Amino acid sequence: MTDFAGWSRSVQERMEHALDRALPATGLAPGQLHEAMRYVALGGGKRVRPMLAFAAGEAMGADTARVEAAACAVELIHVYSLTHDDLPSMDDDDLRRGKPTCHARYGEATALLVGDALHSLAFQVLAEPRAGPDPAVQVEMLGILARAAGSRGMCGGQAVDLDSTGRQLDLAELEFMHIHKTGALIQASVLLGALAAGGLAAEARRSLEHYARCVGLAFQVMDDVLDAETDTATLGKTAGKDAAHGKATYLTLMSGRQARDYARELTREALASVSPFGPAGARLAEIARFVVERHF
Amino acid sequence: MTDFAGWSRSVQERMEHALDRALPATGLAPGQLHEAMRYVALGGGKRVRPMLAFAAGEAMGADTARVEAAACAVELIHVYSLTHDDLPSMDDDDLRRGKPTCHARYGEATALLVGDALHSLAFQVLAEPRAGPDPAVQVEMLGILARAAGSRGMCGGQAVDLDSTGRQLDLAELEFMHIHKTGALIQASVLLGALAAGGLAAEARRSLEHYARCVGLAFQVMDDVLDAETDTATLGKTAGKDAAHGKATYLTLMSGRQARDYARELTREALASVSPFGPAGARLAEIARFVVERHF
Repeated sequence: MTDFAGWSRSVQERMEHALDRALPATGLAPGQLHEAMRYVALGGGKRVRPMLAFAAGEAMGADTARVEAAACAVELIHVYSLTHDDLPSMDDDDLRRGKPTCHARYGEATALLVGDALHSLAFQVLAEPRAGPDPAVQVEMLGILARAAGSRGMCGGQAVDLDSTGRQLDLAELEFMHIHKTGALIQASVLLGALAAGGLAAEARRSLEHYARCVGLAFQVMDDVLDAETDTATLGKTAGKDAAHGKATYLTLMSGRQARDYARELTREALASVSPFGPAGARLAEIARFVVERHF
Repeated sequence: MTDFAGWSRSVQERMEHALDRALPATGLAPGQLHEAMRYVALGGGKRVRPMLAFAAGEAMGADTARVEAAACAVELIHVYSLTHDDLPSMDDDDLRRGKPTCHARYGEATALLVGDALHSLAFQVLAEPRAGPDPAVQVEMLGILARAAGSRGMCGGQAVDLDSTGRQLDLAELEFMHIHKTGALIQASVLLGALAAGGLAAEARRSLEHYARCVGLAFQVMDDVLDAETDTATLGKTAGKDAAHGKATYLTLMSGRQARDYARELTREALASVSPFGPAGARLAEIARFVVERHF
């Protein structure tokens, strides 16, 4: 088995090609919109969600070509959400993945349309013939993605985040927000990767959902830790922004050491959830470990 | 057969109930986001796209319960696009369907999220079990909706519109813009309604696509005519806005009389396209006539 660093690079490279094929060419009208869509979707990103999809696909024995469509779809939803989050009316951020944000580069109206177009493209990619193991499962996958992105998932988490700016949340409220804002799409990434293999037994599904929930929260806890402890250049995005905006973070509720301990506890739970998959679940386990060990 | 006015009211009432059921309750968290989604999606609108879906379903003998999901999906995409179009970075409009726009009422960040959440909800509704005649056709319907909404459809038309503000377009450029900005979703409305009956033969599909293209353009021509000739109170949205913003309209390229003649010519083409459907296509024919005879 390739080591984790090699495997994650191979996923990143594969995603770069897959997204390049999925995105309309800049030669197609409207060229500037397509250029801006490519600007935000290509050439960067850890591709954590695609990694989760490929790892879950591996756990269930899915064909990797089929997982690729699911991986593109979740990454496109993620990139659209970053583009809209960075807008002046939201987080008003000028730097993302080490380069100017979409609206800083192309203007606010174009950035709005870029997000909207990437959002539709995610569903288009997942609705392509052969993107699912069979049409019935494919419809289920499209429904999972739509719910994860919507008002009871990612968008809903954004709304709670917006609403909580400037006031202190308790741990339960903070986790409700994260479970929706980032957790829903992380869970969808794992489920779609697994469903690319075909139907999913109830027990395997519950295990994967619990794994995804723990990894999603651990990821967020570490994001807050790294955001507080790391400089902007290393992160590739503006450091310390949430705290400066009066947003609740894990570090307003616990110390850095406590937060790291909590992330490790979540990782242990994630590892326990995927142990029934045996060696096939090895990549899922590696991702859970990577989340608490990463430095950016 | 009910007269057209009675039929269109029955579609509007049916859509009000169907959208009410599809939209999350305000009692569900995040309540304010759900309230704002309901604010923009319920209680108004001509529901032209649902009418087209129901009429096309009737032409192909589709079950109306099945057409309803498709009608909700296209209307939700339409409402999301209006919400984003009205934003300050786009058209910056305060009035829509006779009431304050979403951002005027709930703020810009919430309006952005409302659009995003409605966008996802459209795909969620169309991915529900039983929303298609069978899973394979349902996947096709989801793909058609995604392409119609995306950068080669509605979003692309918006980008061209944005890019053309303040400069004169010729007729070919203006029609390219409209065929994408509004035509793509109108075509999707007709196709989805027809596909709710099951697979669609190539010839019927071509006829319906041509019908939709003509009706979509006629609708836009008449929009420009009415925008110039009607007051804000009757329209329920700000009159004369496009011309004031230096946007190209049919009336910058032809007289009001020429524009009306052109709309009538498009209507004749639309009627010819659906004549092979016989009496089953009567509602499609009525909509084509309504488009040029409407006063708001």
